[in-house]
Amino acid sequence: MKVVILCGGSGTRLWPISRTLFPKQFVKLFENESLFQKTVKRNDSAAESFTVVINQEQYFMGLDQIEDLALVKPRNFILEPAGRNTAPAIALAAFAANPEEILLVVPSDHLIEDQKSYEAAILRARELAMNDRLVTFGIRPGHAETGYGYIEAAGSKVLSFKEKPDLETAKAYIQAGNYYWNSGMFCFRARVFLDELKTYAPDIFEQASRTFEHSRRDQAIRPQLDDMKAIRAESIDYAVMEKSQKVSVVPADIGWSDLGSFDSLYDTLPKDQDGNTLSGNTIHLGSRNNLVISDDRLISTIDIEDLMIVDTKDAIVIAKKGSTQKVKELVGEVKKRKPEMANVHMTAHRPWGTYTILDEGRGHKVKQITVRPNAKLSLQYHHHRSEHWIVVSGTATVTIDDRTFDLQKNESTFIPMEAKHRLANNQAEDLVLIEAQVGSYLGEDDIIRLQDDYKRN
Amino acid sequence: MKVVILCGGSGTRLWPISRTLFPKQFVKLFENESLFQKTVKRNDSAAESFTVVINQEQYFMGLDQIEDLALVKPRNFILEPAGRNTAPAIALAAFAANPEEILLVVPSDHLIEDQKSYEAAILRARELAMNDRLVTFGIRPGHAETGYGYIEAAGSKVLSFKEKPDLETAKAYIQAGNYYWNSGMFCFRARVFLDELKTYAPDIFEQASRTFEHSRRDQAIRPQLDDMKAIRAESIDYAVMEKSQKVSVVPADIGWSDLGSFDSLYDTLPKDQDGNTLSGNTIHLGSRNNLVISDDRLISTIDIEDLMIVDTKDAIVIAKKGSTQKVKELVGEVKKRKPEMANVHMTAHRPWGTYTILDEGRGHKVKQITVRPNAKLSLQYHHHRSEHWIVVSGTATVTIDDRTFDLQKNESTFIPMEAKHRLANNQAEDLVLIEAQVGSYLGEDDIIRLQDDYKRN
Repeated sequence: MKVVILCGGSGTRLWPISRTLFPKQFVKLFENESLFQKTVKRNDSAAESFTVVINQEQYFMGLDQIEDLALVKPRNFILEPAGRNTAPAIALAAFAANPEEILLVVPSDHLIEDQKSYEAAILRARELAMNDRLVTFGIRPGHAETGYGYIEAAGSKVLSFKEKPDLETAKAYIQAGNYYWNSGMFCFRARVFLDELKTYAPDIFEQASRTFEHSRRDQAIRPQLDDMKAIRAESIDYAVMEKSQKVSVVPADIGWSDLGSFDSLYDTLPKDQDGNTLSGNTIHLGSRNNLVISDDRLISTIDIEDLMIVDTKDAIVIAKKGSTQKVKELVGEVKKRKPEMANVHMTAHRPWGTYTILDEGRGHKVKQITVRPNAKLSLQYHHHRSEHWIVVSGTATVTIDDRTFDLQKNESTFIPMEAKHRLANNQAEDLVLIEAQVGSYLGEDDIIRLQDDYKRN
Repeated sequence: MKVVILCGGSGTRLWPISRTLFPKQFVKLFENESLFQKTVKRNDSAAESFTVVINQEQYFMGLDQIEDLALVKPRNFILEPAGRNTAPAIALAAFAANPEEILLVVPSDHLIEDQKSYEAAILRARELAMNDRLVTFGIRPGHAETGYGYIEAAGSKVLSFKEKPDLETAKAYIQAGNYYWNSGMFCFRARVFLDELKTYAPDIFEQASRTFEHSRRDQAIRPQLDDMKAIRAESIDYAVMEKSQKVSVVPADIGWSDLGSFDSLYDTLPKDQDGNTLSGNTIHLGSRNNLVISDDRLISTIDIEDLMIVDTKDAIVIAKKGSTQKVKELVGEVKKRKPEMANVHMTAHRPWGTYTILDEGRGHKVKQITVRPNAKLSLQYHHHRSEHWIVVSGTATVTIDDRTFDLQKNESTFIPMEAKHRLANNQAEDLVLIEAQVGSYLGEDDIIRLQDDYKRN
């Protein structure tokens, strides 16, 4: 069975923890693992191989996180240059598979707490898929949720798909007992899915097929932007599942949460005896039932109840519980004021490591840069700034114009404006350095790349 | 008239805005001025001179802030090596004055919004003081506050001093109409106060007199620590005012607030139409009646009401309105966990300027250092660290062992461990530099000072 992990997701519903360029599936929310990593681990025993469909911007983050797990199943990546919803993403994965192969399609950003029941549900789905069924997983609803679509079922037979209901309707569904949350997980043969897609959404089938054929191939499959944009954006539910006669449902009671808001995050986190989420960096005096997520700042609360407090280096959100659906609206407002805050954290992830902005002032910017073992930045130069590098840990291999030399801990160097330079870590431990930039313009777009291991030039 | 400004105050009630070493009177809470600066300005027209009684640790902060105002009245400083409450502080100021001089004694950390009424009250107090009365100012109470002592009066005659009442009693006081809040402001001849102190608290008089005589004198009067500690700590109310037969009261309706908690700070700050305090760096969606104080991070709120949110670089407090008296308890808890957070901000004030810690990690620390024009740090060396300096604005005059040289913007230098070094700014504009420290121990106590303009060696 090939496990297809869908890594779309815009990173707005858990802002400011998640950002457009650092969506929720990559945030290490639980036990220092990301939801993406948990998804890989959860499926590792069932998978013969993985296909990760991911935005090309996040390729290295995904690759890093999967490599950190040190698991051995083969994986390949399909790098989307633009998101077109789930039907095209799954179609590309299906084209990349053996036609008779069973695909288990899972989102990368859900939490499933009951592994044993999950594995049982997969086994049942796989049996149905081998009989050429398109299988969807129906989550036994825990409450009358109005934020999900429902599936009406009789055994494994699907009677109907239901749009997000109002509260009364949702309550009636719960009462009836044969309505399930539509979880966004699927299981089918690649061929069967593609046949049904060809029948019910032939334009998507054709254009996805063309896109797949035209893709560049190196370590990953890289669809071209123009091809990708020409595919109609559509969900698998609308394109296929709600129309096909071959659909079955596997009811599943697996401790599922989509973590679609801070409210659902609160429900899943461990809490102290007063109902406050546990965190090392908080002091609560008389406060109860609060979600508190801290970065490195001390968060103290006094006599507050039922709040969500989410702190990051550059932004903090304080919201009433139950109102966290408004975070999306908030992100819209943030985009108007400070677009970069919607997109990135102060700590940015790069294929070679990370950097954190320590200070920005008139004419200068200070960063802490961490370069992973055996990684190097691009050969580059800047038109508007010079840079000072001071090594505080590890050894830097520095190229400036025609010279290449090592800088040890506590040594520094200066890179004049326009000088071609490159920073590499050839050692087995992280390289940490402080970079002070001085110049008239300090934007990330004043980087002229001449060579790059990550094909960004 | 000599205006005596009392700069005691422990800096805990508005934590984390104020800290032990950066108490509330020095925080620029309103219109980019501190309460201390407002106190100086408020009294400038009435004052012939100022005497500032201040903890010696805060001398340069006070001096800086007073100099920033560019006012011309003479001032002298009495630097307390330890706080002994108000009676000893005022006694030292009285010993330093001409015996017949009228002293107006004012706290440095109160807000007075009605300048005209304030000046009228001072004039009235001065008349009474010239007739050898000890004058206290009684604030017409705005509500039945249980946090203040009260003065029962008949005209300017004091009938009694009342301890902090319970709510029923406070209401009765308001009803009666002749009870006033005890504001901590006083006016009297130096001689009259000292005579009464000698009568009612002779031990304080004697030991304060001895302490004053033994004081070192340079630009400031510097009582010795042992002398100071030998004075009994007592408030002027207990030591003199509640016992003397010479006390008069001047009722005053002057827009007074002691800003003793975030609740009273909320009352005095300007607000938007939803009752949220105004701040450039906030987004409110559906939130009402909140105090929000932001440093440089974006604070967003959703559907919250009646909260106090106070954010600084290293700590944030979120409290229910009305519970902010518990901040003191909170600071106790903070002291247990991270004592330095109770004492200092990430930005520390020094006689020569400021530094901000940008980053601290294993074996390194990064600071931004700002040196004021014509100021210099001590000649010093370190046993356990070397330092890199990069100038990002202005010109640094650097001494390393026997060499002295200028570093321009974008130039850097390296100070080896044990090398004697000094940093000076001989220019008319601020010098800003980035310092990266590398070493096994990076505490502020590994500074061996050989020469210092501020007598810290």
